[in-house]
Amino acid sequence: MLHHTLKISLVAAACGLAFATTANAEEVTTERHQAEITTVAEGLNFPWGLAFLPNGDALITEKSGTLRRVGTDGVISTPISGVPEVVYKSQGGLLDVALDPNFAENEYVYLSYSEADPAGGPGNSTAVARGKLVGNNLQEVEVIFRGAPKYESGAHFGSRLVFSPEGYLFVTLGDRYSAMDDAQTLDNHHGKVVRIWPDGSVPEDNPFVGQDDALPEIWSYGHRNVQGAAIHPDTGKLWTVEHGPKGGDEINIPEAGANYGWPVATYGVDYDGSIISDKTHVEGTVQPHYYWVPSIATSNMIFYTGSEFPAWQGDLLVGALKGSQVARLDLEGDRVMHEETLFAEAISGRIRDIEQGPDGAIYVITDDRNGQFIRISNADD
Amino acid sequence: MLHHTLKISLVAAACGLAFATTANAEEVTTERHQAEITTVAEGLNFPWGLAFLPNGDALITEKSGTLRRVGTDGVISTPISGVPEVVYKSQGGLLDVALDPNFAENEYVYLSYSEADPAGGPGNSTAVARGKLVGNNLQEVEVIFRGAPKYESGAHFGSRLVFSPEGYLFVTLGDRYSAMDDAQTLDNHHGKVVRIWPDGSVPEDNPFVGQDDALPEIWSYGHRNVQGAAIHPDTGKLWTVEHGPKGGDEINIPEAGANYGWPVATYGVDYDGSIISDKTHVEGTVQPHYYWVPSIATSNMIFYTGSEFPAWQGDLLVGALKGSQVARLDLEGDRVMHEETLFAEAISGRIRDIEQGPDGAIYVITDDRNGQFIRISNADD
Ligand SMILES: [Ca+2]
Ligand SMILES: [Ca+2]
Repeated sequence: MLHHTLKISLVAAACGLAFATTANAEEVTTERHQAEITTVAEGLNFPWGLAFLPNGDALITEKSGTLRRVGTDGVISTPISGVPEVVYKSQGGLLDVALDPNFAENEYVYLSYSEADPAGGPGNSTAVARGKLVGNNLQEVEVIFRGAPKYESGAHFGSRLVFSPEGYLFVTLGDRYSAMDDAQTLDNHHGKVVRIWPDGSVPEDNPFVGQDDALPEIWSYGHRNVQGAAIHPDTGKLWTVEHGPKGGDEINIPEAGANYGWPVATYGVDYDGSIISDKTHVEGTVQPHYYWVPSIATSNMIFYTGSEFPAWQGDLLVGALKGSQVARLDLEGDRVMHEETLFAEAISGRIRDIEQGPDGAIYVITDDRNGQFIRISNADD
Repeated sequence: MLHHTLKISLVAAACGLAFATTANAEEVTTERHQAEITTVAEGLNFPWGLAFLPNGDALITEKSGTLRRVGTDGVISTPISGVPEVVYKSQGGLLDVALDPNFAENEYVYLSYSEADPAGGPGNSTAVARGKLVGNNLQEVEVIFRGAPKYESGAHFGSRLVFSPEGYLFVTLGDRYSAMDDAQTLDNHHGKVVRIWPDGSVPEDNPFVGQDDALPEIWSYGHRNVQGAAIHPDTGKLWTVEHGPKGGDEINIPEAGANYGWPVATYGVDYDGSIISDKTHVEGTVQPHYYWVPSIATSNMIFYTGSEFPAWQGDLLVGALKGSQVARLDLEGDRVMHEETLFAEAISGRIRDIEQGPDGAIYVITDDRNGQFIRISNADD
């Protein structure tokens, strides 16, 4: 029994490039490419995270707590069993999904989510679990990371999961909004990026290992709400993108132990009319690599490396909730040379996640109760 | 006899800060500052270049061939005598003006302009002359640079004049439009930045000195039409900004002997409907530091260093003919972190030159037969 009804034509889906001529496809002119926007599937319930399986199927989380598989034919599966229970509240719920770099051997899938206090208190936190994906079941599920402290809030959980080339797992977190000052202290996980091994153990060379009053999982701090992360394909370094308060969305290249300034330094102008900080430069904090004022409400980002869009190779593509846009940052080395706003007209939903498919096409999911899974392919002459 | 009628109130002008409350002032909200736009003088005939004298007066060129002094009271002088004859045609005429770094001692003022062929042929080129400013006269005028070859065109003369901290004079040039291919060869000055001593002699360490078939004044090549230049206040390096064909306006940091790609590599999309080049990356050419698509039609730029706008210190302010805007590029080191579009609504003319005044305010002139000289000052609470 399919939980969701497949809305697009299976005939069209089976034709591959024939998508181009279906009513559901829209062609978009950009600076360097013609792109075609095709809705692969819809009816997803506030999808949040997207990851591709080796066979081309997509794993997609829904914030309410379900994980589904979407076939290349657009068919949405029933919920995968074994997913941990989540706190589905405001910005919380089932969040990101990532495959183990050795998935082909170990079948591990990683999920980030907001978790209730196991001790029964009113608080919650971001947590990470992993399990082996066997058929439509997640097995041997274990929690490998639990944010501290448990805190009563429905906001700013982060989170993205990315593996570095060395096999470290980066988990990006949020400041829980009303606990924003915690982002500047090291005895908690609020407003941090953490680095762990895939089994949850702490790498011995993490920057604060052995430091009193510092949690050893912490990689970098002074973040607000980091919902995007990617590894630079040439340098192997972690890049993140975080939401600013009102203005001040930031790209950072988090270095071990560094302080990215929130909330003492920000380019955000104000929030609910009140000034957070009028300081953009504070001693001991690192300037953003790039920032947006006003905010575009950055979600996830990728370094595009596919052959589908040759002129975009090496570019950073940043999804945004506001304006249903993808910001294309043309990079030379780490330097942003140019920003192009893509798809603002052609896509109508808030873009919650963006990934590159095994086919080199770009895929996004939209943050909506009738969430869409969208394919962006090349339509050059 | 005043050639131009002073249009603004001399009473208001004499009041200094009282400008703020005159009808002619407009307040503008920007990301970091409130700014006030005041028209200091108008009635300038297509002003092109602006430089400040030590006493705060401005020297302003008019493209038709006149050089005037504008007092801090807004009074426009009669033409300064001794200015070389110019070819006033399309984009050609009297262009930039710059003061010698040792002006207080030697009184030298430098002018760039389009010059007729001294041999009487139909061509023209950009040239640079200098003379001593004594009262309202330019004396001992000598031509220190003559572009080669003379070429029959009314387009793409460049040019800006800037002195490096070491005392070199950089002259930025254009490709003369229909001669664009010349930008890739070294036997001519088209599409080049040249570096000379203030007396016109060639520095011995210029990159092509002694090379057959290369003009020794050349510093860098592969430029299109460089109408903006400034020296970075910390690094002492030359930065330039040039017009792209349709899209592809570029900031570059020209290094000795380097090729900036025009016309074989460009981010410009097309011109008059025809493709110039579909290549953005060509071996042996340097990528722009930053670029605009679509074009904003960049004119001049400054690194802002004043105390009037503390949050803008170190920023690059780029004037633009399109959209009557100033692009504020927030820099961290050389890296652009953010772009803000300033004054697009408050200023109605094409911005032809931008300079920082001795008072720390920002001044622009507008490209119009009733050209304005505008002061941008701080109006923060
Ligand atoms: Ca920051
Ligand atoms: Ca170039």
